[in-house]
Amino acid sequence: MDLDRLRVNGQRLRSSLEAMAEIGATPGGGVQRLTLSPEDKRARGVLVSWLEELGLDVMVDEMGNIFGRRRGRNDRLPPVMAGSHVDSQPKGGRFDGILGVMGALEVLRTLREQSIETERPVMLVDWTNEEGSRFAPAMMASGVWAGKLDRDWAWQRTDVDGMVFGEELERIGYKGALPCARWPFHAYFELHIEQGPMLERELKTIGVPRGILCLHWYDIHVDGEANQVGPTPMEGRRDALVAAAEMIQRVRDLPGKMGGNMVATVGELHNYPNSRNIIPDRVHFTVDIRSWDDELALRAWSRIRDEFAAVATAHGCGLRAEETWRVGHSEFAPHLVEQVQTAAESLGYPTLSMVSGAGHDASYAAMAGPTAMIFVPSIGGRSHVEVENTTWEDCEAGANVLLRCVLQAANETNP
Amino acid sequence: MDLDRLRVNGQRLRSSLEAMAEIGATPGGGVQRLTLSPEDKRARGVLVSWLEELGLDVMVDEMGNIFGRRRGRNDRLPPVMAGSHVDSQPKGGRFDGILGVMGALEVLRTLREQSIETERPVMLVDWTNEEGSRFAPAMMASGVWAGKLDRDWAWQRTDVDGMVFGEELERIGYKGALPCARWPFHAYFELHIEQGPMLERELKTIGVPRGILCLHWYDIHVDGEANQVGPTPMEGRRDALVAAAEMIQRVRDLPGKMGGNMVATVGELHNYPNSRNIIPDRVHFTVDIRSWDDELALRAWSRIRDEFAAVATAHGCGLRAEETWRVGHSEFAPHLVEQVQTAAESLGYPTLSMVSGAGHDASYAAMAGPTAMIFVPSIGGRSHVEVENTTWEDCEAGANVLLRCVLQAANETNP
Repeated sequence: MDLDRLRVNGQRLRSSLEAMAEIGATPGGGVQRLTLSPEDKRARGVLVSWLEELGLDVMVDEMGNIFGRRRGRNDRLPPVMAGSHVDSQPKGGRFDGILGVMGALEVLRTLREQSIETERPVMLVDWTNEEGSRFAPAMMASGVWAGKLDRDWAWQRTDVDGMVFGEELERIGYKGALPCARWPFHAYFELHIEQGPMLERELKTIGVPRGILCLHWYDIHVDGEANQVGPTPMEGRRDALVAAAEMIQRVRDLPGKMGGNMVATVGELHNYPNSRNIIPDRVHFTVDIRSWDDELALRAWSRIRDEFAAVATAHGCGLRAEETWRVGHSEFAPHLVEQVQTAAESLGYPTLSMVSGAGHDASYAAMAGPTAMIFVPSIGGRSHVEVENTTWEDCEAGANVLLRCVLQAANETNP
Repeated sequence: MDLDRLRVNGQRLRSSLEAMAEIGATPGGGVQRLTLSPEDKRARGVLVSWLEELGLDVMVDEMGNIFGRRRGRNDRLPPVMAGSHVDSQPKGGRFDGILGVMGALEVLRTLREQSIETERPVMLVDWTNEEGSRFAPAMMASGVWAGKLDRDWAWQRTDVDGMVFGEELERIGYKGALPCARWPFHAYFELHIEQGPMLERELKTIGVPRGILCLHWYDIHVDGEANQVGPTPMEGRRDALVAAAEMIQRVRDLPGKMGGNMVATVGELHNYPNSRNIIPDRVHFTVDIRSWDDELALRAWSRIRDEFAAVATAHGCGLRAEETWRVGHSEFAPHLVEQVQTAAESLGYPTLSMVSGAGHDASYAAMAGPTAMIFVPSIGGRSHVEVENTTWEDCEAGANVLLRCVLQAANETNP
């Protein structure tokens, strides 16, 4: 058949997405499929059964990553990989992650339906624990696979209830025998929702990210002095929450002061003892700094850390600032970015060159081999929320770009 | 005997306080005796047994308030009352509340030991749920007794686990038959730790409060829009935590702007969804405003509410401000305040005239009859924390002032 006329089945893709959206469906129209939860297990089971229906070679590695491998004519060539993740945020949406897995599945279904052989093998992948909301950090299993995170350390991560990642993985039956270690691959493509407002704002269908912003996480601990609020004069108070409030505003103002492409956010805050008539003596909050420019992000951290120290001193508070996690910005393979761009154009979809503000498994994949992503619009720019949405047409468009990219790469015979 | 030479037994008072400090003792050296908890029940049991040892008439009312009544020569005269509460904050201290109950017990023990009769009956009281940290509001049972809070409404209050106050009261065996309703009393004295830094700062032993500040509680709800932090530009964000942080600083600055004797505090804050990579879409925090001048406090609320609205609008956030609880400032009976002052001076203790910033059961008692309080120093001004401390000498000094005040009032035969 004329490969230029090949398209995925949009209706079938929608059906897969809708079936997955039922697993962990929330009353608010989203999904809650926390890593290694019963819902994650159910979604994995469905995915595996679908991969088996396609006659793929299904493998699970020691981090629970699931691979579905379709043989190539020249089966010893490094494969073309495509996928994303099936886990979700608490009260997350129906597209984040799962679109990239169902998109890759739809590509494989289309190839089989049309009896299309490829030179290289093609592999679907579901990466374990991309979200990191139950077990920190995020992108954990792709990080181990890429050799950037330690497997044993990852197995020991615990959730808020003290459940251990490695034990939970075993309990749901997804601690596989395959070593979790990267192998040579020819290309990795990840289809994903944008999770931002740019495509919608610019009326574009396909986002072509040239890479992913760096991601720096910090944990800030402010110590003050608890006291009954009534008899304690304002003068001389050491109110940890008042100090933290000033720090939060400094974080808000940081990108404007630094210039450049940067966002900075306090997403999480814990206040102690958190009683309305006791002056807070302890606040723990997080800082998330992202930029395309790693150096700029580090200078921003250095600046805000100094500002935090000054604020803490002014309020008579103690300060402890932990550098929790850093992933450098990741540049995708230029020839694959170009391939995504060309594929989208040849399909007639308006495109937008951009960077990804969100971290993805593609961040780690890009450290292991040639990687690119394909973005489709998020309605209202919303994600990680139950109302997260993308039109079925845009899902289909993204899967068509993925199909074309996978096909092209899988038929390249250069070593 | 010469009543002017009569003193309490400081060693015995210390023993009672130490025994009570073992009930709900925390590793940090404080106590946790939440209202109607197993620890509260145990402390009540010990108190009742001590009251019975003294041959007192022990009564429990329908709110669980415990009374120990000692007959007077003219037993139909309105009694002199003294007491406080045995419940504590979570991780609270070993003196807040319990000192006033053990102080009154020590007064009664001293009277019995010396076979001293009084004209009027003397009653010890332990008020249920002064702290309000398990069941809001605070000072609940004295409020019902004074006719300021509704009994059935109080019974229906629930804790964070949905446990119902009236049911828990019954479960621990302290829902008594006596109606919870004020009766005529000649004087109510409450010995308490200062919970502030003034006595220590001024090197005084006895604080003589002329009343209690008003207490206004508010609950503020800020609504923003959740989003993945990375791909969402700073411009256009509706970050509920950033808005709340600015509001918290406004609260901090409020007393300085209003002038007068006022404190304003944000003690409690809940951030949602509280995930480090999601922009917060909902924050709930509390505001506590206290002043001797009720009108000033109301004007402060009106001002800060307007500021909150402006801040919310500037951040594209929604705002809901609830007026949760208001108790007007309470002035103690001038002749009893004078009596406390005179008693302390005659005992040779340095005194400080002041107001109470903390609410007490005396707030409601003062609405039902002649009331005064006696304060002793809090080391470092600390309270509602495990390190809360007062010297044994100061505890004894406070109990001696209480003894003298109770004796004098109990021998007054005017109607």
